[in-house]
Amino acid sequence: MPVPKYGIVKSPEDAGIVAEEIGFPVVMKIVSPQILHKSDAGGVIVGVNDVDEAKEAYLQILSNVGKCMPEAEIEGVIVEEMAKPGVELIIGGNTDPAFGKTITFGIGGTLVEFLKDVSLRILPLSEDDVREMIHEINSYKLISGYRGSVSKDEESLVKIIMNVCRAFEENEELREFDINPLRLYESGACAVDTAFIFSDKHTEFSNGKEEVPVEYFDPKSIAVIGASETPGKMGYAVMHKLSTFPGKLYPVNPKRDVIMCFKTYASILDIEDNVDMAVITVPSALVPGVMEECGKKGVKVAVVITAGFKEMNEEGKRLEEEMVSIAKKYGTRIVGPNCLGLISPHKGYDTTYVQRSPTPGNIAFLSQSGAIVNAVVDWSLSHNVGFSVVVSVGNQSDLDFFDYLRWAEADPNTEAIIMYIEEINNGKAFMDIVSRISLTKPVVAIKSGSSERGRAAAASHTGSLAGSYEVYVEAFREAGVLNVTNLEDAFLAAEFLSHAKHYPKGKRAIVVTNAGGFAVLSTDYAERYGIEIVDLPADVIEEMDKFLPEFWNKGNPIDLLGDADGARFAKTFSVLAKHDDLWDICIVIGFPNLVLTSERFAKQIMMLSEATEKRVVSVLIGGAEMNGGREILRENKVPPFEELETAFRVIGRTLQSKFRVKGPGLL
Amino acid sequence: MPVPKYGIVKSPEDAGIVAEEIGFPVVMKIVSPQILHKSDAGGVIVGVNDVDEAKEAYLQILSNVGKCMPEAEIEGVIVEEMAKPGVELIIGGNTDPAFGKTITFGIGGTLVEFLKDVSLRILPLSEDDVREMIHEINSYKLISGYRGSVSKDEESLVKIIMNVCRAFEENEELREFDINPLRLYESGACAVDTAFIFSDKHTEFSNGKEEVPVEYFDPKSIAVIGASETPGKMGYAVMHKLSTFPGKLYPVNPKRDVIMCFKTYASILDIEDNVDMAVITVPSALVPGVMEECGKKGVKVAVVITAGFKEMNEEGKRLEEEMVSIAKKYGTRIVGPNCLGLISPHKGYDTTYVQRSPTPGNIAFLSQSGAIVNAVVDWSLSHNVGFSVVVSVGNQSDLDFFDYLRWAEADPNTEAIIMYIEEINNGKAFMDIVSRISLTKPVVAIKSGSSERGRAAAASHTGSLAGSYEVYVEAFREAGVLNVTNLEDAFLAAEFLSHAKHYPKGKRAIVVTNAGGFAVLSTDYAERYGIEIVDLPADVIEEMDKFLPEFWNKGNPIDLLGDADGARFAKTFSVLAKHDDLWDICIVIGFPNLVLTSERFAKQIMMLSEATEKRVVSVLIGGAEMNGGREILRENKVPPFEELETAFRVIGRTLQSKFRVKGPGLL
Repeated sequence: MPVPKYGIVKSPEDAGIVAEEIGFPVVMKIVSPQILHKSDAGGVIVGVNDVDEAKEAYLQILSNVGKCMPEAEIEGVIVEEMAKPGVELIIGGNTDPAFGKTITFGIGGTLVEFLKDVSLRILPLSEDDVREMIHEINSYKLISGYRGSVSKDEESLVKIIMNVCRAFEENEELREFDINPLRLYESGACAVDTAFIFSDKHTEFSNGKEEVPVEYFDPKSIAVIGASETPGKMGYAVMHKLSTFPGKLYPVNPKRDVIMCFKTYASILDIEDNVDMAVITVPSALVPGVMEECGKKGVKVAVVITAGFKEMNEEGKRLEEEMVSIAKKYGTRIVGPNCLGLISPHKGYDTTYVQRSPTPGNIAFLSQSGAIVNAVVDWSLSHNVGFSVVVSVGNQSDLDFFDYLRWAEADPNTEAIIMYIEEINNGKAFMDIVSRISLTKPVVAIKSGSSERGRAAAASHTGSLAGSYEVYVEAFREAGVLNVTNLEDAFLAAEFLSHAKHYPKGKRAIVVTNAGGFAVLSTDYAERYGIEIVDLPADVIEEMDKFLPEFWNKGNPIDLLGDADGARFAKTFSVLAKHDDLWDICIVIGFPNLVLTSERFAKQIMMLSEATEKRVVSVLIGGAEMNGGREILRENKVPPFEELETAFRVIGRTLQSKFRVKGPGLL
Repeated sequence: MPVPKYGIVKSPEDAGIVAEEIGFPVVMKIVSPQILHKSDAGGVIVGVNDVDEAKEAYLQILSNVGKCMPEAEIEGVIVEEMAKPGVELIIGGNTDPAFGKTITFGIGGTLVEFLKDVSLRILPLSEDDVREMIHEINSYKLISGYRGSVSKDEESLVKIIMNVCRAFEENEELREFDINPLRLYESGACAVDTAFIFSDKHTEFSNGKEEVPVEYFDPKSIAVIGASETPGKMGYAVMHKLSTFPGKLYPVNPKRDVIMCFKTYASILDIEDNVDMAVITVPSALVPGVMEECGKKGVKVAVVITAGFKEMNEEGKRLEEEMVSIAKKYGTRIVGPNCLGLISPHKGYDTTYVQRSPTPGNIAFLSQSGAIVNAVVDWSLSHNVGFSVVVSVGNQSDLDFFDYLRWAEADPNTEAIIMYIEEINNGKAFMDIVSRISLTKPVVAIKSGSSERGRAAAASHTGSLAGSYEVYVEAFREAGVLNVTNLEDAFLAAEFLSHAKHYPKGKRAIVVTNAGGFAVLSTDYAERYGIEIVDLPADVIEEMDKFLPEFWNKGNPIDLLGDADGARFAKTFSVLAKHDDLWDICIVIGFPNLVLTSERFAKQIMMLSEATEKRVVSVLIGGAEMNGGREILRENKVPPFEELETAFRVIGRTLQSKFRVKGPGLL
């Protein structure tokens, strides 16, 4: 990496000598391991023009720093060639606890914190990745040339980043660094300031766990340890839910003989037959003992609903570790603790205490919040949404997202996967599995923790520009996971992507509507969410002129006017289907009106969808008048959106995701 | 305004002489009325260091420009003192067709288009306004001082902007200008480059219209001109809707004697009694003749549903002008044309052809799109929303937003006003009226046309940074209008602001929930939408320690844990009510669970709301299990949100709006 000429000095006299050797003007900076932000401490003087000024600057720097940070160890003052001005860039490196080493690239210098114009990647990187991350920043024109300014030396930049990446990967102890500014010139570059942080703390990415056989999630017999007949108790709620389980159900409670008409056992060890799964609701202090018995009984999966483990205090943490090590001894796998457990509507079991069980369906929902499972299941019952799998992952003491993803992958009923994630244990393993799954089933994630409130500590260096949330976002993108910010969007996206055509092939959109107002709003939303409204070529306009009213807008969005009937839509759609090389998505927007029923409208949309390999999306805005059409579209798996901005936002998200799902009709 | 020393020269020799007088280095630039972007044309050379270089630069510039823009008239080359580096700012001026002269301020130089970090105001400006617009930009720290850099001369900047504003106001012909960059120093400033565009085209802001008496919207008799008994015809749909009008209804159709049991007239002139309002559905060519008759009959308001006027072609435009001038002659006021007309559910009339009429309620909805009226009314019927006034404004040939706003203001049933706006005729009059109305009734607006697609033409100068959409946004802010981007948010915002406490007093929020996952997401959303999650002081934490479980999170969001019952919420709320000086909004989030019914939860929220003057907001997430609680909250006018991100987005919007509504309990 090219750097300015420099020397480190420990006296005013040496400062003068070294400065003269380098050639004026020079810049002088404090050297101290404690001082990361040299300017803030008065530790930088630029534009030093002669020997006397150099001597003076030396003394001034020591005096400033002495006042500002009296305890800082001073290793000397660096005298540096003043690099000529250039485009100021930043290359930063960081080590993420979940995903390992990352590289940040972007606009540097003093503007770095205002611009926040950076791209981020997880190592390792190919040269193509590096080029992509350079092109990705908003201010790329500053590098490629802009308004008469000549283009800068992008090839040198690529080489520098590649070298930096190699060094970062090879150097296990290098945890974090910051090259800012790197000045890029028409030819060459110069790293004006750098900071490196080393540590011998290693991140262990292998958890040494064995993969859980997915058959474990298909139990033939379930024991409820802590079963109860007292309404309001957890052991009651769980028994109540499981009472309809088609396999064998064994309540365990030493104080009862029968619970809800099921023969009840004093201990799991008293049960005559095999027990595949045990649901544990006894107080946390009793869990290790119960786990020992489960192990002896050969239980495959123990679902520990009980809370009061590591989420609570040190004693809870100890209990959790004890429980895990007992289970490991016997090969029993643990769901939770501190969770709602598992729901498999198709297999007919539900270990949770949600008020009403969800209906069978095609979505796997994995959540790191029990409350969100409750809310989502209740919401699903009045929104026509069913599930193949629901998991409340709890503390992930043993089984974690990785394992539940494997279950969802293997489950034939699952067509799409939605996750609510707060933290992932093993980022690399997670990326491997979702990269594979997303090839065949869409995976949608909500990652919480984007706020700076929880990351203020890291704010002073590169980390603040690309903290952990951004690393997750990048990991999702690389692995083909669609990242959304709320539950409603997650379900709409999953529904949208469950279609046989999966992801749209590109971002070129045609909008067709009979509503002028929604046409205008569509243009706004398209721009906001990165959807490209393409121009209609002259021959397409000419074809449409033949049957559209003389004063149609001859543009995209295509406004068929308020008096458009089914036939007008049908003719328009047949032109669009014929020219479907022009577009990747067709967004059709309708509203309640006297000329065209929503059912007729829906049928036209279905016909367009069948006539093209491209994605056709419908937005039916209004209330009950539109329900007939919505029903038809939903039955035919072209789910209609009901709110226009939401539709554009969700579609826009699918375009930003690295396109991965290789379903039929895809690139 | 301070500018660099300069001279304009017309020969290489003069260039050398003038440059020497000014002192080296100098910068040299082409002077040509056709060349706005001098750098792009190769018309700028910086760092000219001696007389020979100056001569050479002169020739080089002429040669570059000659190649680039051979047709440009060359007035000479300006030789300028090279201003020393400083913070590069931009001051731009523009004249908006609706709102008049505007000023843009922000970061300038070559970064101007990447940063888009500007603030905008509509003239006239006070010194306080100018200070506010300086402080508003994201990069204000570049001016106020940042990381050891000394602060810049803000006082000079204020004076310069004030002077510029004064000159802009006084100079009627000055339509647009661009001072970029203005370099700001520790002391003083220098305008390095400027461009001014003059024009003798005046914008006429007074439309000379008389205010319409609001009683005109309360007709006692209505005639339907073009009434029909043929289903599917406009004249049928309108008659059908109006058949329940409690006043007198007169169908007009020369071919019929009776329509829908109403005596029918050949001409409006044949009607024996007075006619207050005429609804016109005859073809556009017939409208001027019909308007003449309406005028003679003394009709106060003519609602022209018919389309085919200026929105269609030149002939339509002519017809519209003819119609308007006839109506003006008689004092008849026109709604439309090309509209759905008016709905007044409380007065029992509906001139539109929406499928089903809306129910009476408290929202006035004014829309520049008929399709949106159709969609919104249908949606409202299944979403518990009623209206006081619905207007489809159409072409606004006579009555416009200004007049309908006055109607909504005077209407005692209207508690909130929602507008869908594409374009406003008279921005200043609009601002005057909404500034007044928003003091007592919340006004919410969706303005379409934010996309660059429609504004590409203006992209090359200041206009592109603060085009018309941004001027609307600023006008809304100044006038106390809440600006949202979609219909759903508009209705949620109107419902939220219809509360007696109107706007929250500030942005300090407390979040209370029993759901850990939603607590984390709340922190993310709060940051995203500008809501401040305040820290809990030690004494409040101590008070809560007395009754909360030992391991509560002792922070904000306050997580009362999944086993929180009504009593735990009640105790927490009583502490928060006692300390309501700490916060401006309390956001309470609940989900379906076995411990706490939604009804009990809602009652606790009501009690908190009654115990404080601050705004209490509820979010009840889930499906049918939460409906009981939602009902209670809605009845008590503490409308619950159902989706968390939407709640934070809408609340965040209300905080960004200039706080205007002076209801009870407000600052």
